[in-house]
Amino acid sequence: MERKLLEFDVGESVELFLLIKSSVKGTASNGKPFLSLVLQDKSGELEAKLWDVSESDEASYAAEHIVHIAGDIQNYRGRKQLKIRQIRKATAADNVSAGEFMETAPVNKDEMAEEITQYIFEMKNANLQRITRSLLKKYQDKFYDYPAAVRHHHEFVSGLSYHVVSMLRLAKSISDLYPSVNRDLLYAGVILHDLGKVIELSGPVSTTYTLEGNLIGHISIVVEEVSKMAEELNIEGEEVVILKHILLAHHGKGEWGSPKPPLVREAEILHQIDLMDASMNMMEKALRHTKPGEFSERIFGLDNRSFYRPSFDV
Amino acid sequence: MERKLLEFDVGESVELFLLIKSSVKGTASNGKPFLSLVLQDKSGELEAKLWDVSESDEASYAAEHIVHIAGDIQNYRGRKQLKIRQIRKATAADNVSAGEFMETAPVNKDEMAEEITQYIFEMKNANLQRITRSLLKKYQDKFYDYPAAVRHHHEFVSGLSYHVVSMLRLAKSISDLYPSVNRDLLYAGVILHDLGKVIELSGPVSTTYTLEGNLIGHISIVVEEVSKMAEELNIEGEEVVILKHILLAHHGKGEWGSPKPPLVREAEILHQIDLMDASMNMMEKALRHTKPGEFSERIFGLDNRSFYRPSFDV
Amino acid sequence: MERKLLEFDVGESVELFLLIKSSVKGTASNGKPFLSLVLQDKSGELEAKLWDVSESDEASYAAEHIVHIAGDIQNYRGRKQLKIRQIRKATAADNVSAGEFMETAPVNKDEMAEEITQYIFEMKNANLQRITRSLLKKYQDKFYDYPAAVRHHHEFVSGLSYHVVSMLRLAKSISDLYPSVNRDLLYAGVILHDLGKVIELSGPVSTTYTLEGNLIGHISIVVEEVSKMAEELNIEGEEVVILKHILLAHHGKGEWGSPKPPLVREAEILHQIDLMDASMNMMEKALRHTKPGEFSERIFGLDNRSFYRPSFDV
Amino acid sequence: MERKLLEFDVGESVELFLLIKSSVKGTASNGKPFLSLVLQDKSGELEAKLWDVSESDEASYAAEHIVHIAGDIQNYRGRKQLKIRQIRKATAADNVSAGEFMETAPVNKDEMAEEITQYIFEMKNANLQRITRSLLKKYQDKFYDYPAAVRHHHEFVSGLSYHVVSMLRLAKSISDLYPSVNRDLLYAGVILHDLGKVIELSGPVSTTYTLEGNLIGHISIVVEEVSKMAEELNIEGEEVVILKHILLAHHGKGEWGSPKPPLVREAEILHQIDLMDASMNMMEKALRHTKPGEFSERIFGLDNRSFYRPSFDV
Amino acid sequence: MERKLLEFDVGESVELFLLIKSSVKGTASNGKPFLSLVLQDKSGELEAKLWDVSESDEASYAAEHIVHIAGDIQNYRGRKQLKIRQIRKATAADNVSAGEFMETAPVNKDEMAEEITQYIFEMKNANLQRITRSLLKKYQDKFYDYPAAVRHHHEFVSGLSYHVVSMLRLAKSISDLYPSVNRDLLYAGVILHDLGKVIELSGPVSTTYTLEGNLIGHISIVVEEVSKMAEELNIEGEEVVILKHILLAHHGKGEWGSPKPPLVREAEILHQIDLMDASMNMMEKALRHTKPGEFSERIFGLDNRSFYRPSFDV
Amino acid sequence: MERKLLEFDVGESVELFLLIKSSVKGTASNGKPFLSLVLQDKSGELEAKLWDVSESDEASYAAEHIVHIAGDIQNYRGRKQLKIRQIRKATAADNVSAGEFMETAPVNKDEMAEEITQYIFEMKNANLQRITRSLLKKYQDKFYDYPAAVRHHHEFVSGLSYHVVSMLRLAKSISDLYPSVNRDLLYAGVILHDLGKVIELSGPVSTTYTLEGNLIGHISIVVEEVSKMAEELNIEGEEVVILKHILLAHHGKGEWGSPKPPLVREAEILHQIDLMDASMNMMEKALRHTKPGEFSERIFGLDNRSFYRPSFDV
Repeated sequence: MERKLLEFDVGESVELFLLIKSSVKGTASNGKPFLSLVLQDKSGELEAKLWDVSESDEASYAAEHIVHIAGDIQNYRGRKQLKIRQIRKATAADNVSAGEFMETAPVNKDEMAEEITQYIFEMKNANLQRITRSLLKKYQDKFYDYPAAVRHHHEFVSGLSYHVVSMLRLAKSISDLYPSVNRDLLYAGVILHDLGKVIELSGPVSTTYTLEGNLIGHISIVVEEVSKMAEELNIEGEEVVILKHILLAHHGKGEWGSPKPPLVREAEILHQIDLMDASMNMMEKALRHTKPGEFSERIFGLDNRSFYRPSFDV
Repeated sequence: MERKLLEFDVGESVELFLLIKSSVKGTASNGKPFLSLVLQDKSGELEAKLWDVSESDEASYAAEHIVHIAGDIQNYRGRKQLKIRQIRKATAADNVSAGEFMETAPVNKDEMAEEITQYIFEMKNANLQRITRSLLKKYQDKFYDYPAAVRHHHEFVSGLSYHVVSMLRLAKSISDLYPSVNRDLLYAGVILHDLGKVIELSGPVSTTYTLEGNLIGHISIVVEEVSKMAEELNIEGEEVVILKHILLAHHGKGEWGSPKPPLVREAEILHQIDLMDASMNMMEKALRHTKPGEFSERIFGLDNRSFYRPSFDV
Repeated sequence: MERKLLEFDVGESVELFLLIKSSVKGTASNGKPFLSLVLQDKSGELEAKLWDVSESDEASYAAEHIVHIAGDIQNYRGRKQLKIRQIRKATAADNVSAGEFMETAPVNKDEMAEEITQYIFEMKNANLQRITRSLLKKYQDKFYDYPAAVRHHHEFVSGLSYHVVSMLRLAKSISDLYPSVNRDLLYAGVILHDLGKVIELSGPVSTTYTLEGNLIGHISIVVEEVSKMAEELNIEGEEVVILKHILLAHHGKGEWGSPKPPLVREAEILHQIDLMDASMNMMEKALRHTKPGEFSERIFGLDNRSFYRPSFDV
Repeated sequence: MERKLLEFDVGESVELFLLIKSSVKGTASNGKPFLSLVLQDKSGELEAKLWDVSESDEASYAAEHIVHIAGDIQNYRGRKQLKIRQIRKATAADNVSAGEFMETAPVNKDEMAEEITQYIFEMKNANLQRITRSLLKKYQDKFYDYPAAVRHHHEFVSGLSYHVVSMLRLAKSISDLYPSVNRDLLYAGVILHDLGKVIELSGPVSTTYTLEGNLIGHISIVVEEVSKMAEELNIEGEEVVILKHILLAHHGKGEWGSPKPPLVREAEILHQIDLMDASMNMMEKALRHTKPGEFSERIFGLDNRSFYRPSFDV
Repeated sequence: MERKLLEFDVGESVELFLLIKSSVKGTASNGKPFLSLVLQDKSGELEAKLWDVSESDEASYAAEHIVHIAGDIQNYRGRKQLKIRQIRKATAADNVSAGEFMETAPVNKDEMAEEITQYIFEMKNANLQRITRSLLKKYQDKFYDYPAAVRHHHEFVSGLSYHVVSMLRLAKSISDLYPSVNRDLLYAGVILHDLGKVIELSGPVSTTYTLEGNLIGHISIVVEEVSKMAEELNIEGEEVVILKHILLAHHGKGEWGSPKPPLVREAEILHQIDLMDASMNMMEKALRHTKPGEFSERIFGLDNRSFYRPSFDV
Repeated sequence: MERKLLEFDVGESVELFLLIKSSVKGTASNGKPFLSLVLQDKSGELEAKLWDVSESDEASYAAEHIVHIAGDIQNYRGRKQLKIRQIRKATAADNVSAGEFMETAPVNKDEMAEEITQYIFEMKNANLQRITRSLLKKYQDKFYDYPAAVRHHHEFVSGLSYHVVSMLRLAKSISDLYPSVNRDLLYAGVILHDLGKVIELSGPVSTTYTLEGNLIGHISIVVEEVSKMAEELNIEGEEVVILKHILLAHHGKGEWGSPKPPLVREAEILHQIDLMDASMNMMEKALRHTKPGEFSERIFGLDNRSFYRPSFDV
């Protein structure tokens, strides 16, 4: 199997097709324009500079284009960087597509859909079950496509649904260990908690925030969606209030974006397992590229800490 | 005109009809039951203890009942207290009703309604105008009846609408002074910002939080109401997003309950004039009972500060 | 089966043997001495006042004595209180012992010991396994007897070992779900994380802090114990440093008592599941005494929040 | 009318006289010296680099000199930058003066002076009026010339007096709406609150902090000025204490530089309208250069938020 | 030598003259008035209740009166309390005066004055020396009489000058150890830093804040005094600015009341030795009444910590 | 005497031997590699760039090598920088050694050792004395060689022991002034407080953190050392607990790395004199390079403040 971008060490030469994730023009100190590229394949991304670019270069090497590059992996201030020797735009003849270069959840969509369906099937409270099933159905295409965030954690294709699947498994384990937990509330909360992201974010590629994302946010968005769906399904009563609360409160604190702190047991649990799965994902990603006996890059979402990988962890 | 409860000084005797605002049973150190009463008329409220009560006393002197009391105003740890000498339940023959004992906004409902209607009339953006008018109409009875809060500021009958009227006047002055302000957004924001309180709070008398108030909160409630009303009126587009944002952001910060900080100019202004009118009301109330040359009671909503009333302020 | 203290409602009369948890003398407003008692059985504890006590009463009704009481459950400021009608010290003839009145972990010591032994048995890293096993053995009597805290969570007989067992189950589930977790480090961390409490706390009854508990704290205590045991067992190398770090960091932040934040993946996980099991225990305890449709007492360890028990949670 | 610097879009060529606001020498990566210039006219300022400079260039292109430039507006990391093609120092023959290139308050000094005089004239408390009038007279030249700050808000010629005029208008509106406000205290507070800036800052051009500004600060400076003036005018009594307090407290909190928080009603109001006028000015400035449907640059003084300009705000 | 109030243990009877520090009237649960007294002699103070008081009792047992009391030392919630058996007002015949009952600095005024004079004499900078000497002279009577604070530290007669003397000794030691310290600035700063307290506080007995104390504060007060004195003495130049800064900054942070943080070396040192002497005094006072092997009462000014007195500290 | 690196002003040429403190490779905007060097002698350090380097240059100009340089002192963004004209590696013929280029404590090791020995000799508590003497002996070589920190304060050869000596002198002065201080505890605390640094840090040259330094930290390290030494010496009892506490608490707060706040008087004093000596050192270093009448560089360890050196401080 072919080696990927991040599998090369400093000093090695590479010859690869890569996807341009972003391309920003600058002016070098000699007054000439250059491009700062972020290039990626499924293994991750690296920065590269392209010097002395013409206007047609700018167009050719814009974001979302695929290029073929010959270059060298170098060390720049302790981080790997790609030094470009040769670059050309990929053509039809190269037979490559963007999807091949984007990280994707390690489980495929159908399996995830089947697993989530099973969790919904196990729910006993018909009101919670119907709202959950209907909302998921309404947004299912985006739900299985979108990342869970712009960066930091689960920031890959299908990251949103993969995050939900992992959390459902945690939710199940916890419900088994603490039997007084209301499994229906917890499952509904897990499945819907980040569903507002399908409106907050622009999509799976070059993800940015939409206007509603910036000004309203996925928490308020999903709460409103629950209300509308409940009305549509003629469901009234306390389940709707509690479900809305659980979603509203899942960031745990006002400072973190929740207008109410968790005031129902399952809201507190949802908040905790959301944190747990997100930190697992961030640590996994950082340590995957760290050698035993070394410290990882700093993880922004974990107070900017740098984690040590024990030398006996081989 | 008859003197009211708070107009009597320490050492004076009173003979008055009063409304019981709350009544809590306790056990005295001699093992006998007593009632801690909060008694009020339009001038404000005082605490009083009723010793050695029977079970029928408990029933007679419960919250929301009117009583006739003879007693003395005493000083208890620097605060006035009412010492009860005689107490009896009011009867039909006394010809008194609860409304006479409750503080009310200094402007009557019809005048307020007329003034608010005029502001809505002046709005030029038809979408914002229709949403505002329709939502106000939907909840108008409660809107003109409810207080703006359980305590701290505008905690009286019609306090909600009075707070809105005061803020509208501020909004108008500010729009006159800074012409680039979008008057429509600001007026709509002011009128609707606390409308969720009609669902968050239980009503104008013995006000408490409802379940939705506790778990969802008036900010999320009103945002959802705007969405539903926009849908009902077939209004789409950026005005709805911006209006929702302005309402969402009016507490200014996550710590204070807003899931998004103000990111639109009129959202920031709404937040500031909300603070200004609330603090004006709190200072007014505290200084009204403070003699020139003295410090007021501490004001919880203003960092627990005690304000000085200048001796030349007579 | 006989009804326990907390199973009686306000207004009911009780006739029970109870253990005096604490007894503090005060002076009533008539100048006479009284005792503030905290009385408990396995269901929990209530306060009671004993008026006009003699010096011999003080001696008879001191902490850790058992008494027989006839009285009434009353409401005092929204909390239940016990009003004593008759009280007498239990005698040999009553055939009651303190153990019958103290809350205990819901699993017995032998089962817990067996389960923990099994987890140690599953560890593959011989160094971690030997340190864990030896330290547990050194303190096993206290470990299976002590509470996990003076108050807030797992504050009952065998609370410490029960907390560890619950966390081990969580640790196992999480290791199953995230296979890159180092199971040995995590199990060792869970088993030892609060072992310093056997030196920090005075014991299972009327628990207080020892001088070492107050001045050094269980975190530094256990780290030192690991060092000494490793030396005794002639174990050197990175496992010891990492294990010490994991224990040092398990409170997560400097403000919470950890001199280093978690810098190893399993340290972060240990911190999170410690929080999770503690909050589960606190919510469980608070909601157990809350009726559906009502809010619980405030939970100090969860930011003083009051949790709502849904009315459909029956 | 000629187009100004900030009215050109990226890609356009400019040929303009500009004032050098600051000029800092650096060493390029080829080892040769260059100048980082900030160039301005009334529309605002842009950065530009001048490469390979000689020692005489350094002297010619120093701060406060006027230059004629031919160049291009470029995009550098999302901000406009000026690329210099030709540059020469302006000569007497060019007939240009620094004043033409500096932003100035939108109202002229005489109008402002007349308006402020009118407010002083309306004051009824003779003591407050005399102190205010005399202090303003003492520093009037600088007061009508200085900016209100080094950066962030009202950082232009006459910015200080313009800030005061805007706040006086707000103060008047608020006093009309809340009649119990002491208008004299509020007017005096507004007029004097930033007067210490004439000692704290170096002047209207290339403004920096003086030693007294750095070590004492404008708040303590103005309080001392009030004391001295009161002594000079033989005014004693509580007005002086209260006026000093209002000035002392106008930053609202210790963290923001006020040694006492507002403890008098008018002190609180002064603090709020100071904030309001400053934020209005900052939002105005940021949104003026933002197209409808886009987000502004981040505003440092408003928690670094970026404001959205609605697309219907045209 | 006669035993003092705090030298009696719980259970002992006392018969003593005592000074009433404060006397507050309350209403007992039987409806009758009582007085809460704080009684003191040089050893410290205790609380006592006087039940069933008449109006003439209220007058007789008001603050600042001396009384003769027979009573018992009791334990009330872990603190000593005095139970009054007999009380009578002292008469001329008793030949006692208030001064005998108030704690005083352990060094007498003349010695302190001599020592401070010597420090001033050692100053070499004539400007700093003259300002310091003149200001001290202006307020010398109060300076040697006042406490350094209302409570927390040095809250006794002559506490202000005693605090200054202790700090001067520290300042001298530190200047000896770190020779680059500017001794003149440091001595001047120490001597003047709390001089504003003679205006901030009401006096040595029953100390409270004056209006200027509440609204302006001793920091701004002393800075103004320095300015006026410099003017009077025709002293100009940087020494005055720096001295004012050092005084302004001596609380170290905005949150603690300093409008500027220390920006001159001696300002930082002054802040640190002020803290050091204050904490020494607070710990001394708390530990004086603590037995070896026990924890002291909580010290409010030291983050409410309770300090342990080692059992070998005898 | 020859001039040192930091004694040259901007614009002057230098010809000097210098030690390379660090050397980091980068890629210039023309794609060629360069080295960012930090060069030092006893006067301090400066940055320099070496352009267009070959692979052999990288090896020659690595950290810890000595070089001979001809170049110019330039101004880069307000800081001095060294522009290299000629560079060559020092050879044996040059007869220079690393020690000549490193800052060292101003007192030599023998004098420090003698002084510390004297303090230990004065201790009266035999247990504290033996532990202190034995631990110091165990690590004496490193103790007199190591810096006290990687940067910020006392970051030079023998900085650790010099910091201890300065603090001992402070401790002695304070014990003289406040006689109730336990001199033995304080001396022991001062001598041992940073001893863990000999394990936390890598050594006196190019100092970095060791794995134990990163994961355990010098506070926990020294506490463990005390325990082990006490065991070795068969010393038991409260002195050991108290000494461990004092060391544990010397950072003062959880946020600053102490798992317990100071709860013993001498712990609080130790914390304060540690801060005092560290800030003295940081201010001294910053002001040494500041001209009278100017502000120093920002001092990171003192809240990033920039200190003013009075113009009369000459």
